[in-house]
Amino acid sequence: MSIQKLQEWREQIRTELDSVVDFWLKYSHDTVHGGFFTCLGRDGTVYDELKYVWLQGRQVWTYCRLYRTMERFRRHEILEAAKAGGSFLRRFARVPSSSSGQWKCAFCLTREGKAVKIQRTIFSECFYIMAMDELGRVTGDKDLQLEAEQMMEQLIFWVREDSSSLGRPQLPGDVPTNSMAVPMMLLCLVQQLTEDRGEEVVQKYRELGSWCVKQILQHIQRDGTAILENVSIEGKELPGCQGRLQNPGHALEAGWFLLQFSAARGDKELQQTAINKFMELPYKAGWDTEHGGLLYFLDVDGHCPTQLEWNMKLWWPHCEALIAYLMAYSHTKRPELLERFSQVYEYTFSHFPDAEGGEWFGYLSREGKVALDFKGGPFKGFFHVPRCLYMCERLLDDLLGNKD
Amino acid sequence: MSIQKLQEWREQIRTELDSVVDFWLKYSHDTVHGGFFTCLGRDGTVYDELKYVWLQGRQVWTYCRLYRTMERFRRHEILEAAKAGGSFLRRFARVPSSSSGQWKCAFCLTREGKAVKIQRTIFSECFYIMAMDELGRVTGDKDLQLEAEQMMEQLIFWVREDSSSLGRPQLPGDVPTNSMAVPMMLLCLVQQLTEDRGEEVVQKYRELGSWCVKQILQHIQRDGTAILENVSIEGKELPGCQGRLQNPGHALEAGWFLLQFSAARGDKELQQTAINKFMELPYKAGWDTEHGGLLYFLDVDGHCPTQLEWNMKLWWPHCEALIAYLMAYSHTKRPELLERFSQVYEYTFSHFPDAEGGEWFGYLSREGKVALDFKGGPFKGFFHVPRCLYMCERLLDDLLGNKD
Repeated sequence: MSIQKLQEWREQIRTELDSVVDFWLKYSHDTVHGGFFTCLGRDGTVYDELKYVWLQGRQVWTYCRLYRTMERFRRHEILEAAKAGGSFLRRFARVPSSSSGQWKCAFCLTREGKAVKIQRTIFSECFYIMAMDELGRVTGDKDLQLEAEQMMEQLIFWVREDSSSLGRPQLPGDVPTNSMAVPMMLLCLVQQLTEDRGEEVVQKYRELGSWCVKQILQHIQRDGTAILENVSIEGKELPGCQGRLQNPGHALEAGWFLLQFSAARGDKELQQTAINKFMELPYKAGWDTEHGGLLYFLDVDGHCPTQLEWNMKLWWPHCEALIAYLMAYSHTKRPELLERFSQVYEYTFSHFPDAEGGEWFGYLSREGKVALDFKGGPFKGFFHVPRCLYMCERLLDDLLGNKD
Repeated sequence: MSIQKLQEWREQIRTELDSVVDFWLKYSHDTVHGGFFTCLGRDGTVYDELKYVWLQGRQVWTYCRLYRTMERFRRHEILEAAKAGGSFLRRFARVPSSSSGQWKCAFCLTREGKAVKIQRTIFSECFYIMAMDELGRVTGDKDLQLEAEQMMEQLIFWVREDSSSLGRPQLPGDVPTNSMAVPMMLLCLVQQLTEDRGEEVVQKYRELGSWCVKQILQHIQRDGTAILENVSIEGKELPGCQGRLQNPGHALEAGWFLLQFSAARGDKELQQTAINKFMELPYKAGWDTEHGGLLYFLDVDGHCPTQLEWNMKLWWPHCEALIAYLMAYSHTKRPELLERFSQVYEYTFSHFPDAEGGEWFGYLSREGKVALDFKGGPFKGFFHVPRCLYMCERLLDDLLGNKD
């Protein structure tokens, strides 16, 4: 691949990132009640005023990360929007858990901030922590870092000690499961909370980081030939559909989390595993050789998944794949990884961006036609697209020897 | 439409019903632990052993209804299968609710009957009641009728008095909603529990039946031009996506429930509403003029629904449409209703049945291609297809003046 190609990608990615940031700055801010609208139609129109907490937290994080690390986004309006989103979250997202005296984060709020729904999982809290920590870095407010670390303590308690106060009844047939999402998110949080922090904080989360990696590696199954989304606590395959489920996008995202971790610890073996297992296998399983693009869900034995959307092409697995392959190339310079990046890039940029209305479509049919035409929804906000473009721009800058 | 056409339909439907019954008799019985496997692949292979309680209850009901009302299904093996399913349900489906001392039905059990998951809704209980009542009718076991009526009391309490023991925390932003599914299911249960029963039972549920109808009629919105899936308790439109949601299959199913009810009470005005609102409007909103078939979800203002599967063609709305239009024709003899039946029939029979593996596919893409190729899954069992075929066969018999 020529330097020229890298430069071309970098230019396109940079332009796209600017345009995506503009889209959300323009359409998503609720200047009356604070926080962000995330249900934005094709042209940016708000079609629902509910505020999804995952997406509030993610938008605060993304604004702050861009502000903190990229010169051209160090803009007043971005900082102010992040701060407004942060106060909305701190004021409204936390709901006292009925029985345990612990705090839960709601999943969804009204425009004014009243809790509508609480999930019995840990993910709203994860994105709350990401937002608080990154906002603390940008503003220098130590209180926010503390807030993030306190919520993190509670999260660790739920995951490693006792999940009963999440509200799921303990049922005899409901065997404890190691779901990829949980150690992945925790590893991401460890990296968030420890980046450029003093030795004390690094030590505090060191064992947790290793534990997360071990939990993620348990998902390598079938003699190393498949990444399965759910395994038993002992790291064995689970029976039925749940056990056979593959989620290529998730595996690829875990792949680049592991790759970052392996670089930080200088662990060459983990680097190889991250690439050969968490990037190669999801491609083999998930790339649609007929229509291109990554399928959403697969059954490792070739049964039809029971998720109705299994064969759709979603934006976010493609975002994760772009980061994963470019990072893997950047760490190893193996040309076939850049080839893979190029292949995903071509599909992604020819299918997802909407030249007319701005931003990206999120949901295509198997054949690659737009199936849902909104730009933001209950699960699509200002996160996967800008994070991917930001990460790729930086990786390409490094490869090209540019300084921002 | 000629008599010959009616006869042709009747023959095809009769043959199809026989074949569908054979499929489930052959592949779905768990002769070791009792109950039914419902995750059946294209060729009938069990691909997951979980037992979904909705589908266990529905299968018991359908076996019993066929046994009780159609001469050719009055077979020992059908009765035995229904009884075995009924005992499995009675033994394992009910789980004591943690705090309230009430019984909940699980949503999903292991093959051996251990509870895996409990939903915070009323639907497992609904299908449990249908199963118990119909099994009681077939076996003459008064205890089952009692069991059904006791569970019904609890259901009514949850819906009309206090839903807190269903386990949803009360949240300030979570406004109480009239969801079509709830009064629809209750009306269906009223009809189930009172059919051919003495005056005492009929009186007991009389007010509830009228209440259900009123609740269902609240879903006629926008000056009578749309049926909306969720409305406020006061019968007003709700804000956002939830408020604008249309589910044509549900509206059509409600339509024939209302039509049955209007016939039983001799209510001509309700008959007209059932047809002109609950059958005409969902067709106008939901029929895909480009590819044929009924879309799954729509937004009344033309926004894109947020449900990823919104534009898929599912088997069950087509089943409900067939019953609705044929029943409406049979009650009114308006030829355009038979035309409508004919149109849905053509799409349904040319897309859903699998001549090779038997039974029907459940999930097609917008364009009508099979997207998920299994015959049974977590939400598709032995229910909508045989109920539709059974109802249509009887309606056609009546129209043709046949006696079974």
